[in-house]
Amino acid sequence: MKRVNAGFFPPIPVNNDKSRPMYIQLYDWFRSAIINGRLHPGQRIPSSRYLASDLQISRITVLTAFEQLHAEGYLESSVGSGTYVAKSIPHNAAKLTLVDSRWAPSPSRPGSRRISKLGTKFLSAPVIPRGFRAFQVGLPALDRFPKTIWSRLAIRHSRRTKKELMAYGDPMGRLACREAIAEYLSVVRGVRCDPAQIMIVTGSQQALDIAARVLLDPGDQVWIEEPAYPGAVRAFAAAGARLVPVRVDEDGLDVKQGIKRSPHARVAVITPSHQFPLGMTMSATRRVLLLDWATRNGSWIIEDDYDNEHRFAMRPIASLHGLDKDHRVIYAGTFSKVLFPSLRIGYLIIPKDLIPAFTRVRELSDIFPSPLHQGVLTDFIREGHLERHIRRMRTLYLERHDTLVAEIRKQLGPSFNILTANAGTYLVMLLPDGLRDTIVAEKAAQVDISSVALSTCYQEEPVKQGLILGYGGVDRKQIQDAVKRLAG
Amino acid sequence: MKRVNAGFFPPIPVNNDKSRPMYIQLYDWFRSAIINGRLHPGQRIPSSRYLASDLQISRITVLTAFEQLHAEGYLESSVGSGTYVAKSIPHNAAKLTLVDSRWAPSPSRPGSRRISKLGTKFLSAPVIPRGFRAFQVGLPALDRFPKTIWSRLAIRHSRRTKKELMAYGDPMGRLACREAIAEYLSVVRGVRCDPAQIMIVTGSQQALDIAARVLLDPGDQVWIEEPAYPGAVRAFAAAGARLVPVRVDEDGLDVKQGIKRSPHARVAVITPSHQFPLGMTMSATRRVLLLDWATRNGSWIIEDDYDNEHRFAMRPIASLHGLDKDHRVIYAGTFSKVLFPSLRIGYLIIPKDLIPAFTRVRELSDIFPSPLHQGVLTDFIREGHLERHIRRMRTLYLERHDTLVAEIRKQLGPSFNILTANAGTYLVMLLPDGLRDTIVAEKAAQVDISSVALSTCYQEEPVKQGLILGYGGVDRKQIQDAVKRLAG
Repeated sequence: MKRVNAGFFPPIPVNNDKSRPMYIQLYDWFRSAIINGRLHPGQRIPSSRYLASDLQISRITVLTAFEQLHAEGYLESSVGSGTYVAKSIPHNAAKLTLVDSRWAPSPSRPGSRRISKLGTKFLSAPVIPRGFRAFQVGLPALDRFPKTIWSRLAIRHSRRTKKELMAYGDPMGRLACREAIAEYLSVVRGVRCDPAQIMIVTGSQQALDIAARVLLDPGDQVWIEEPAYPGAVRAFAAAGARLVPVRVDEDGLDVKQGIKRSPHARVAVITPSHQFPLGMTMSATRRVLLLDWATRNGSWIIEDDYDNEHRFAMRPIASLHGLDKDHRVIYAGTFSKVLFPSLRIGYLIIPKDLIPAFTRVRELSDIFPSPLHQGVLTDFIREGHLERHIRRMRTLYLERHDTLVAEIRKQLGPSFNILTANAGTYLVMLLPDGLRDTIVAEKAAQVDISSVALSTCYQEEPVKQGLILGYGGVDRKQIQDAVKRLAG
Repeated sequence: MKRVNAGFFPPIPVNNDKSRPMYIQLYDWFRSAIINGRLHPGQRIPSSRYLASDLQISRITVLTAFEQLHAEGYLESSVGSGTYVAKSIPHNAAKLTLVDSRWAPSPSRPGSRRISKLGTKFLSAPVIPRGFRAFQVGLPALDRFPKTIWSRLAIRHSRRTKKELMAYGDPMGRLACREAIAEYLSVVRGVRCDPAQIMIVTGSQQALDIAARVLLDPGDQVWIEEPAYPGAVRAFAAAGARLVPVRVDEDGLDVKQGIKRSPHARVAVITPSHQFPLGMTMSATRRVLLLDWATRNGSWIIEDDYDNEHRFAMRPIASLHGLDKDHRVIYAGTFSKVLFPSLRIGYLIIPKDLIPAFTRVRELSDIFPSPLHQGVLTDFIREGHLERHIRRMRTLYLERHDTLVAEIRKQLGPSFNILTANAGTYLVMLLPDGLRDTIVAEKAAQVDISSVALSTCYQEEPVKQGLILGYGGVDRKQIQDAVKRLAG
C-alpha cells in the first residue's frame, strides 16, 4: 500500500494487486473522490510527474488514468496551467454514486414508471407452458427424437465454421435451407412456392408477429377465430389490431359471420387444416368463400399451418395457400412440433410482391435468423430423416391419442366428451355442465398436470368449457398415471 | 392404367405409380373433377365397393380417399342413400384451381394490396450491409476468431442433446449463460446486476425492438441521437414513436437541447460510451443531467453499449447503468462484434420491476431464444476464451485503425478529416466541402467498397458529410488496396 500526501491533497491508496491494474485504481480513486466531493470543482490536481514519483508508479500509468478522467469529463486542463477537477461537474454530482441494480427500485411516485399499454396488456395472461409435465400442450415426443442422427449432423456442421456463415446473413435465411423446405412442403403439403418466397423465422410466433407488423396499421380490423390460438391474439394485439372474433363450426371459420361482423377487415388469421384448438378442418366451400372475400376486399389471409404434418391415416389436407390465385395468403409453419421447439426454426411463405416489406420488417425485428442450425436442418431433410421421423411420429401420436381417449373414457366416464382431431399432438376434453375449466385446470396443476383451459382461447363469452391436453410428449404409462391423478 | 366407366360416371385414371399412393390419385381425381365441374353439386358417386371392384383396388383405398374428400367438404353422405358431391360447393368453385405461387401476382386494382405504413416506411432505406467487402461496418475480424476452440465447445454441446434443452425454454434465456454474462459485464463494464435481470436476445436490434414495444405507446416522444444508429431509428419508428432528434457534440448528447425540444419524452435512446457513429463519449456532467431529467420526468433511458469492449489502451468507460440509482436505465449489449454476428446472442439488463412486462413482450415476439448456442457461449466465457479474444482483438483493431488512418492520410490527403474514436471497429472519414456522401458511397461501391453515408444517420438536415468505414474485418493489405481504389 502506497500513499501520497501532496500537501492539501488527500491520500491516494494504491497497491500492487494484480487483479486491478494501477491505472484503474488511480482512476477509480479520482472518480469517486470527485463524485463524493472530497475533491471540489475547479480544484487543482498535482501534476502527473509529481504523482508518479510520489506513488512510485510509472508516469504512463498516471497519464492513462488522467486521459480516461478527461474523456469522461471529470478533469479539465488549461494549456500551461495544469489539470483541474472539472468546473462543470454539477453540484448534485453526489448523485453519481455507483449503484447496484440488483436492488429493486424503491416505491416511487405513481405513474412515474409508466410503460406501454402493450407492456401491461398481457401481464395477467396465462404463462406459456414449459417443462415436461403430462399433457403440456405443444410438446412433441422428445424421447423419440433421433438424437444420434441429429448430433452427428450437428457435429459435422460444428467442424466447419466457415467465415461466410459467421457474418451477417440474409434476412430471409440460408438459401439451401429454404430450397429444402420448399421441396418438403411441396411433397408433404402440396404447397408450390419458390424458395425466394420462403423466410426462415424462429417459429409460428415470430411468423405471426412479423406478418402482423407488415400487414396492419393500428386500429385495423382482423378476423380471429373464436376460439383461437392465444399466440395469434397476442401478436395481432401487439400490432394494434382491433380483433374481431369469428366463430368456428364443424366446417371451420364461419366466413359469413366474419363478413357480417367486419366486412372490410384487413386480415383473417386462420388455422384451416386443423383448427386450434377445436381441431376441425375448414370445408372447401368456406375456403372458396374466404378467398373470394379476400380478393374482392383486398384483404390478406394468414394460414397458420402449425401442426399439420401429424395427420393420422390420411395425407394432410391441401393448403389454402395452394388454392389462392390472387396471392392473398401468407403461409406460416414451424418445425417446433415436427422436430423440437428449441431449434427455433419456422417459415413464412410470402407473396412475391410483399417480399421487400417482409424483409425490412424482419430487419428491424432481429436483422436475420441464425444460420447455424439451418445447415443441420437442411441435411436432416435432404438425407430423408425428416420424412422418416414424421412417419414414425404419426403412428406414435395416434397410439398416444388413442391411449388418452381410452383412459379418459375408462377413468372419467362418458360425461367428459372428447373432441378428437384427425391430426396433431393434443385433444380437447369438454367438461360436464357446471364445471369451470379455469378452476379444473388449476386443480389439475396441483396434481402436476399441465393443461390449457379452453375458455382462455375465447375473446368473448366462452361457449364451451374444456381442457386442452397435449399427448405428444407423454408415453402410455405417463398417460395412465396422469389420468388417474385427474380422476382422483 | 385402369379406367372405370360407371355408366354416367367419367373415367378415373389410376395407375400403379409407386410415388403416388392409389388413394392420393383417387382423391386428386375427385377433387379436381369437382372443382372443374366435371362432377356437379349433388351428383351421386358410385359406392366404394363398386369403385374398388371396378378399379381393382382395395376398398380401404377408396374409403381412405372418400374420408379425405368428406373431411374437406367435397363429398356428402346421407344415411342409407349413398355419397354425393356436396351441394354447398359454390358455383364459382372453378376458382379453386390449384395455383402455383411462384408466379408473381398480376397487377391488380390500386390499393387492393395495401400493407401497413410500417411495411412501406423503410422500403427505400439503405440495405443493411452484408458480405466481406472492405470497410463493411459492423464486421469483426472473423479471420482471427478462435474457430478451433469454438468448434471444440460446439461439438461438446452437440454430443449431449439433453431433452431439457430441446423443449420450450425460459423467455429470458438459460440461467447459466445469464450468470456468465453477468460476471463478464461486472468485470469488463463495471455493471452490477442480478442474472435474473438479464434477458438473452438475438442482438442489439431485438434488444431495441423489445424495449421500444415495452416502453412506448404509439405517438409517444423519444429522444434519438442526431446522428443516430439507423437500427434504433427503425425499431422506435416501428413502435409508433415520434422521434425527436437531439444533437450530439464533443460531450455526447446535448441533454439541454433534448429538454427544450421534448421535455416529457418517454424514452432517450443513447450510445453514451461510444456514440454511434461519431465516436465521442458522454461526459459525466451530461450523464448526471440525463439521469436527473429521467428521474424527475419518469422517463426511461436505453443505453446501447453495442461496441464497447474494443476500447483501445483504456478500460471501457463506466456505464450509465452503473450510475442509475432510480433504475431508469435499460442496458443493451451484443456479442455480434465481440464474437461473430451469426451467433445471434445479445442481452438486455432490465430494471427488476419491468421484468414481467419485458418477458411477456418477448413471448409475443418469438417466445424464447434458442438455448443451443448459449451453452457454447457459457463455456467460452467460463474458460477464459472470451477475455483472451477481446484482449487480442483490441490490439488488432488498434493496428487496423492506425493503418486505415495512415492510408487515408497518405493516399487521400489532409482534406479528409478523420473522427477517430477510442474504441470500436469503424471510423468516420469526413468529406471536404462540396462532396455529397451518398454519391461518394455509391462511387465507392462501384470499386467494391462498402461504406455507410454519414448523412443517412441524420433525421434532419445532416450537418456533416462523411463515410463510416469499418476496419474490423479487413487486414493491412486489404486496407491498403481498398484506400488505393478509393483514391483512384
